[in-house]
Amino acid sequence: MPELKDQFDKSGPQPAVAAEVDRSQLNLLLLSNGALADKRAEVISELYGASPENPKTILFVAFALNDQDAAAKRMTAWLEPLGIKVISAHTVADPVALLDKVDGVFVTGGNTFRLLDKLQKSGLLEAIKQKALAGMPYMGASAGINVTGPTIMTTNDMPIVQPASFEAMNFVPFQINPHYVDGKFYYEEGGKVVPYQGETRADRINQYHEDNATPVVGVREGSALRIKGKAVEILGGKPVTLFEQGKPAAEITDAKILSSLIERLESTPAVKPRTPFSKP
Amino acid sequence: MPELKDQFDKSGPQPAVAAEVDRSQLNLLLLSNGALADKRAEVISELYGASPENPKTILFVAFALNDQDAAAKRMTAWLEPLGIKVISAHTVADPVALLDKVDGVFVTGGNTFRLLDKLQKSGLLEAIKQKALAGMPYMGASAGINVTGPTIMTTNDMPIVQPASFEAMNFVPFQINPHYVDGKFYYEEGGKVVPYQGETRADRINQYHEDNATPVVGVREGSALRIKGKAVEILGGKPVTLFEQGKPAAEITDAKILSSLIERLESTPAVKPRTPFSKP
Repeated sequence: MPELKDQFDKSGPQPAVAAEVDRSQLNLLLLSNGALADKRAEVISELYGASPENPKTILFVAFALNDQDAAAKRMTAWLEPLGIKVISAHTVADPVALLDKVDGVFVTGGNTFRLLDKLQKSGLLEAIKQKALAGMPYMGASAGINVTGPTIMTTNDMPIVQPASFEAMNFVPFQINPHYVDGKFYYEEGGKVVPYQGETRADRINQYHEDNATPVVGVREGSALRIKGKAVEILGGKPVTLFEQGKPAAEITDAKILSSLIERLESTPAVKPRTPFSKP
Repeated sequence: MPELKDQFDKSGPQPAVAAEVDRSQLNLLLLSNGALADKRAEVISELYGASPENPKTILFVAFALNDQDAAAKRMTAWLEPLGIKVISAHTVADPVALLDKVDGVFVTGGNTFRLLDKLQKSGLLEAIKQKALAGMPYMGASAGINVTGPTIMTTNDMPIVQPASFEAMNFVPFQINPHYVDGKFYYEEGGKVVPYQGETRADRINQYHEDNATPVVGVREGSALRIKGKAVEILGGKPVTLFEQGKPAAEITDAKILSSLIERLESTPAVKPRTPFSKP
């Protein structure tokens, strides 16, 4: 056993020293799916500072989806009445250059691996990161919020595409798990509802913590996080679930706890976000 | 759009030409979880050709689990009465060398990303592949059957570790989805059972087929595949579900269809298993 352990120690990628990130200008709306219902239009208009009288233009990124034309059409129909003009990244030659000319970004859901791969290959991963850290309003939904943590290592999605790296935008120094669900899953078989024998969501996040130290925030269906600088609001009326390595999961309704978590993670080297790293 | 598309075409990894694989000597038992119940001991004894009078020794690989000591202890207690001596890969200095001295392999479940990463780093991925293709009995459970397809790109697991590649052992030329479940998932919230809003398993496999051509076989909980050469048996009394790109999902009870699928995939270059490849 010692020899094999040594071998892993030598061959495994080492955690990089996390660069200091200035999060003071962030202006984020992070939606799990189905979030905010009737208040959604209002919250989105506030994020982008848009109204029919004061229209804004955003870069829409639907890389997570296969049919980006259809997604762009849906978003246009939905957002234009709010005074938000949508330009879909897949329709322009140089989406990175376009970022200098828009007022905000919206990265929508689908498959997180496909999204991250295309963000990396197009150069948008780094470009959006820099713009959002400088204050550009960013809205993400589902896969679009997985990429706002240090890595996509707590996505629920199937790894249908292999990105060069799992590292993401690190807007928040904790991992995000969207569509968070407590307890067992069930499914129908032979006319009966039976418990699923595979891992629960908490089991999977605990597996993550067997190999990684970064805290994980589970954002329930119908919930959202509104983040300005390091100030966090929890929208949607449900608690989020905070998973920290070696501690029991905690239900959080007071968003100040998340703000404190950001401060703590930034000032505690031991739990700073790190690059993907497999323990021996 | 054309320019961005071109950029992806140039930068994306290209599919490798699949090497010819001779599967005629394979002797596999691929268990989804909870498979075979009371018949499990009999089927496993048959696989390894073991009995208390004619004991065999196997290499047990629990790399998918965090607590490998506990897993090895459980397996020993379970298999030794059947005449199967268990040596856990994590307890030996050179598990690759040990493969020359054992009669079979058992790769058990847990997290598929962690498993593949450690199989790659220890050299066991290639070593087990060569031994099993030469006829060594191989049993896999859950994550241990994800690694028997061309890639792990249809695992249900969370990507808690980043392996160097998603490519796996390619014993079968189709992808495997263990714990396969039809239709919607449900969960309990506020005392009620509510439908999960995230993707169904079929949705996820359809996403895989938006970017990849390899067929996917969903193996239900409680089911197993017994494979000798290209001859397949479906154990457990439930159908498997076959997903082919561009076709509706099909329920398969006649295992000869899977044998034919193997023949067809081996003789049809267009749908040969390929390396992870992201479409523009």
